[in-house]
Amino acid sequence: MIKAGIIGATGYAGGELVRLLLAHREVQIKWYGSRSYIDQKYADIYRNMFELVEDVCRDDNIAQLAKEADVIFTATPQGFCASALTQEILAQTKVIDLSADYRIQNVDVYEQWYGIRHGSPQLVPEAVYGLCEINREQIKETRLLANPGCYPTCSILSVYPALKEGLIEASGIIIDAKSGTSGAGRGAKTDNLFCEVNENIKAYGVTSHRHTPEIEEQLSLAAGQPVVLNFTPHLVPMNRGILITAYANLKKEVSYEEVKAVYDRYYGGEKFVRVLEKGVCPQTKWVEGSNYVDVGFAVDTRTGRLIMMGAMDNLVKGAAGQAVQNMNLMFGLPESMGLEWAPVFP
Amino acid sequence: MIKAGIIGATGYAGGELVRLLLAHREVQIKWYGSRSYIDQKYADIYRNMFELVEDVCRDDNIAQLAKEADVIFTATPQGFCASALTQEILAQTKVIDLSADYRIQNVDVYEQWYGIRHGSPQLVPEAVYGLCEINREQIKETRLLANPGCYPTCSILSVYPALKEGLIEASGIIIDAKSGTSGAGRGAKTDNLFCEVNENIKAYGVTSHRHTPEIEEQLSLAAGQPVVLNFTPHLVPMNRGILITAYANLKKEVSYEEVKAVYDRYYGGEKFVRVLEKGVCPQTKWVEGSNYVDVGFAVDTRTGRLIMMGAMDNLVKGAAGQAVQNMNLMFGLPESMGLEWAPVFP
Amino acid sequence: MIKAGIIGATGYAGGELVRLLLAHREVQIKWYGSRSYIDQKYADIYRNMFELVEDVCRDDNIAQLAKEADVIFTATPQGFCASALTQEILAQTKVIDLSADYRIQNVDVYEQWYGIRHGSPQLVPEAVYGLCEINREQIKETRLLANPGCYPTCSILSVYPALKEGLIEASGIIIDAKSGTSGAGRGAKTDNLFCEVNENIKAYGVTSHRHTPEIEEQLSLAAGQPVVLNFTPHLVPMNRGILITAYANLKKEVSYEEVKAVYDRYYGGEKFVRVLEKGVCPQTKWVEGSNYVDVGFAVDTRTGRLIMMGAMDNLVKGAAGQAVQNMNLMFGLPESMGLEWAPVFP
Amino acid sequence: MIKAGIIGATGYAGGELVRLLLAHREVQIKWYGSRSYIDQKYADIYRNMFELVEDVCRDDNIAQLAKEADVIFTATPQGFCASALTQEILAQTKVIDLSADYRIQNVDVYEQWYGIRHGSPQLVPEAVYGLCEINREQIKETRLLANPGCYPTCSILSVYPALKEGLIEASGIIIDAKSGTSGAGRGAKTDNLFCEVNENIKAYGVTSHRHTPEIEEQLSLAAGQPVVLNFTPHLVPMNRGILITAYANLKKEVSYEEVKAVYDRYYGGEKFVRVLEKGVCPQTKWVEGSNYVDVGFAVDTRTGRLIMMGAMDNLVKGAAGQAVQNMNLMFGLPESMGLEWAPVFP
Repeated sequence: MIKAGIIGATGYAGGELVRLLLAHREVQIKWYGSRSYIDQKYADIYRNMFELVEDVCRDDNIAQLAKEADVIFTATPQGFCASALTQEILAQTKVIDLSADYRIQNVDVYEQWYGIRHGSPQLVPEAVYGLCEINREQIKETRLLANPGCYPTCSILSVYPALKEGLIEASGIIIDAKSGTSGAGRGAKTDNLFCEVNENIKAYGVTSHRHTPEIEEQLSLAAGQPVVLNFTPHLVPMNRGILITAYANLKKEVSYEEVKAVYDRYYGGEKFVRVLEKGVCPQTKWVEGSNYVDVGFAVDTRTGRLIMMGAMDNLVKGAAGQAVQNMNLMFGLPESMGLEWAPVFP
Repeated sequence: MIKAGIIGATGYAGGELVRLLLAHREVQIKWYGSRSYIDQKYADIYRNMFELVEDVCRDDNIAQLAKEADVIFTATPQGFCASALTQEILAQTKVIDLSADYRIQNVDVYEQWYGIRHGSPQLVPEAVYGLCEINREQIKETRLLANPGCYPTCSILSVYPALKEGLIEASGIIIDAKSGTSGAGRGAKTDNLFCEVNENIKAYGVTSHRHTPEIEEQLSLAAGQPVVLNFTPHLVPMNRGILITAYANLKKEVSYEEVKAVYDRYYGGEKFVRVLEKGVCPQTKWVEGSNYVDVGFAVDTRTGRLIMMGAMDNLVKGAAGQAVQNMNLMFGLPESMGLEWAPVFP
Repeated sequence: MIKAGIIGATGYAGGELVRLLLAHREVQIKWYGSRSYIDQKYADIYRNMFELVEDVCRDDNIAQLAKEADVIFTATPQGFCASALTQEILAQTKVIDLSADYRIQNVDVYEQWYGIRHGSPQLVPEAVYGLCEINREQIKETRLLANPGCYPTCSILSVYPALKEGLIEASGIIIDAKSGTSGAGRGAKTDNLFCEVNENIKAYGVTSHRHTPEIEEQLSLAAGQPVVLNFTPHLVPMNRGILITAYANLKKEVSYEEVKAVYDRYYGGEKFVRVLEKGVCPQTKWVEGSNYVDVGFAVDTRTGRLIMMGAMDNLVKGAAGQAVQNMNLMFGLPESMGLEWAPVFP
Repeated sequence: MIKAGIIGATGYAGGELVRLLLAHREVQIKWYGSRSYIDQKYADIYRNMFELVEDVCRDDNIAQLAKEADVIFTATPQGFCASALTQEILAQTKVIDLSADYRIQNVDVYEQWYGIRHGSPQLVPEAVYGLCEINREQIKETRLLANPGCYPTCSILSVYPALKEGLIEASGIIIDAKSGTSGAGRGAKTDNLFCEVNENIKAYGVTSHRHTPEIEEQLSLAAGQPVVLNFTPHLVPMNRGILITAYANLKKEVSYEEVKAVYDRYYGGEKFVRVLEKGVCPQTKWVEGSNYVDVGFAVDTRTGRLIMMGAMDNLVKGAAGQAVQNMNLMFGLPESMGLEWAPVFP
């Protein structure tokens, strides 16, 4: 039985982690960390857990937690994990960080986009970027896992095969992304009130969203050359779900079937990535509550572009579900354990 | 391994049944019946099931299905099951009917409220009303189970202890109910279009909703006297969830604690009914996607009334989940098998 | 040209008042008061007003404002207006208070339900309760108008004719109300975040909501005897709209047509109250953005009850629209001036 | 007083036209045409119009209507107007066609994208594309007005100044569009049911949406060279609103201020196009219910792109409002008459 601790258990990603780990038969949650709610019953904060979780919230003493847990999940604001993590902690426990602190190998880029100094740059090199479908083998070996961001997960998985196989040009990529509101977190901000979000859609973070360098770094690895792209997120009046629509220039004429063959080759053996059939566009509702990413695309012969689309649940494959998938790999468990739920519809 | 067949697998309740049974380790679905989509791939209708269900839809030949299945779920329009069911079929298989056909023991009342002749009144007496928390023992023995309606499940469970224990008067009860739109089914009607339902709330079926006699019959049994009540459903712009607010006259002054003690006594041992704490009102979001019913209440000393509230997911505890719970009882399995999911939030 | 000042112009009701007054050809807004946003451009807070309002927000100095304005609208938290208002101010300007401070003639009841001391009980007797359809003549004469609460407006108008005419009993009335989320205000609270409200419905303030005594006082006046009732509000995932469903015992058997005749008699000449036809239930979407209240009802012969329903836009007829309607009366303008907008659908 | 007839008055665009024309003091609606609801009361179809419209629905006899009306609005399926319109009709009345039949001057392109033969290609040359901000003078002179599509209106207005002034390249433009569900019409289709749209987002018509050639033709005129672009619409769970996010390559380095100066020059005098301030992204909620288009943009120096955004209400500026604006121009009325409503928020 794996003993797990969560720091940041009362954010939306943390809450989802609790939901998933409760259903995981090899895991026991030992620590519900929440600085805002110390000593309050966890189920008083998330009443869906009434009678299911009896624990009270604890602090974020990661050093103490490291002594008690086999794995620590940090679903914390940027900077926390980088400041708190040490070699001593990593010597005692595995860490799966759901924040951005260890996702970007280039620390300068991290510091520039996030506007903070990195608290432990010396640990960055050993961190593994936890996109299971791409880095599976390294994930199995690491003790410090950088769980990918929600937008990057969906963006990278949608674009990766076409870019890696050289079907599309590395320059000129545009990713237009749409997210449900749980991605904005549970902080009490006017902008996230029901009446401000409902019946509304807007772009935000245009040209400056922090997930941009994360996507660029990973796609640069795939392309074997630097990728600079446009990433524009939008806020959609729904709780869960991310849809990305990516545009790239085809290097040469290809048929739909040729592209499909490439995607099938990459993802045919992947449980959690589903390559949709011709003419079918992904919808976030079809993956809600599950760890699946649905990927589809269209070839536009008029413009010489490939349009790639991906849909997933931002709290599952985009956060807590992927974290569990990574944990499974890190502990030698079947990769899909605790994640074998069909999407909830409607 | 229980072989299950579903007739009406492409309605919302049928789709939910598929989702739950896929995750049930003792069940195999052998028949996805859907008259509207015969020979089409089930996953082309419900794309959340892409790569999870490979079957094509079949017809509603219940006689044939009876030979192949240990249990048949009928999630069909009113009248179908009553017309199709026979002693021969029941001799071969167990039937769990999610329609209203066998829920009301008084066939005259059924025919009056539903406006159709009952096709098999002779089978009605042996049908068991499948509210597990109340009729558990009979459910275990039956081969014909009438799965309760969504509104009745939530209404009855919320009111039952107070009525059964004589805390409230049997006359004068009012149930004001609110339901998400999946309760209206998947038929393509103008009234159920997004733009007609969104940003809107309305009552419907006022004084005439068909769940009224079902609630009355069951509460009459609890009260030991005829119960005639007002039941008013409302359509709410959300996919899932039912909330009921019930009003009844207290027979005498009681404290909150006295009422709480009664509810705790009835439901303390029930996994799927959660009696909330003082001052906490049920919310449908806290039970979404799960088989739980959350129950709460308030004593109004000014008016001498007890206000009882209940929240549940209409597609789970109000339909497919309760059907699985009943199936578990009918087959001697642990009652909560396949239903031990925490609610999804947010 | 009437010079108007608004204190509390950046709440949702205040914002709606701005929208309506901008379109009113006899009014000029001279003062956008907002303590939270002093010196900020109003259109930076409510960007729908970009290029339409150039003013900056000012403070809540009501004494100064009284010198500059013919009418002051206070859309402020409970207690503010009662504390700030004086005879001197009322000698200089008319006041339309959208808070609850002057709605309840019985100051003891006010202080008990609101839990604060009333700051100017001596002014209460001269305040007129601004339900135009009932108190039209007094409204024309007053300088201190208590603009009714959202729930009370919808509740009272729905029940008034039946109660006043003695069709229903004064005791035992139940009002089950449902409101969109703008009624909860624009404060940044976790409970009102999109993800907490969306896909959710709950009751709140059960047995204790502050609009209860306001409804009771007005209905007592109609009944000619004390009315004590149950009022239960619910939060619905939509921006605007209130629906109330009221239940009362019929004093004797009546036909639908008899009740309809009573309602038509009361409201036949009222522009803003529409008595729906037989079998039609009000829907909030049909009145959205407008000053209309749609009223309907059903006679339940089985239970001997009358079920009365009303729908309106909580920010218009439930707040700003009714305030403008009252202003029109107070200044001798046509009652519907600036309010003759058809509802927005969908 | 202008006598107006509407063919297709019971679709969402037709309904919005009714709402706007009712509030227009120079117009009287003489004909509510709706093939589906002939002889039914209009207010029984759109109950927001109860007591406001007493007319019954009439057929689509445009020849008869031409004798009775000064202007005919056709809010009809593609092909109807092209088949029904004649020189005789145009000799008697002005026609404002809200369908696509006369929007595209190249009839071959029309027939290819719409898959139908054009019924009156000889009338196409005299039709004027009714984007008031661009074709104002021609609109004043025409008797056959092609009211622009919803997506094209928002797309063209957002991109036009930058393209016309040569700031961006004519090739390589990408328009990623998001629309509320009223754009899908009021037809009873499963795909548009509440439960299918709510909590969901998807792309549709990828590479093949019929608004593509309309946008291309207009932007080609602006660029003075053929424009071929990607246009990808998405369905968003909200009733109203269109947001477009457009990406184009800058021809040379420009500052935000330089671009802003261009947009201000084009739209500074336009009432209904609001150029937002630096750092402000348009939101559909800020224009809901109004005829405004909010436009904003960002310069991305990293990628050398200009990102242009526009938001509007698809039923107002994207359909009925623009039709009224065009009518005003065609009849010599003040352009904004009947359209001077502030956006509704929240």
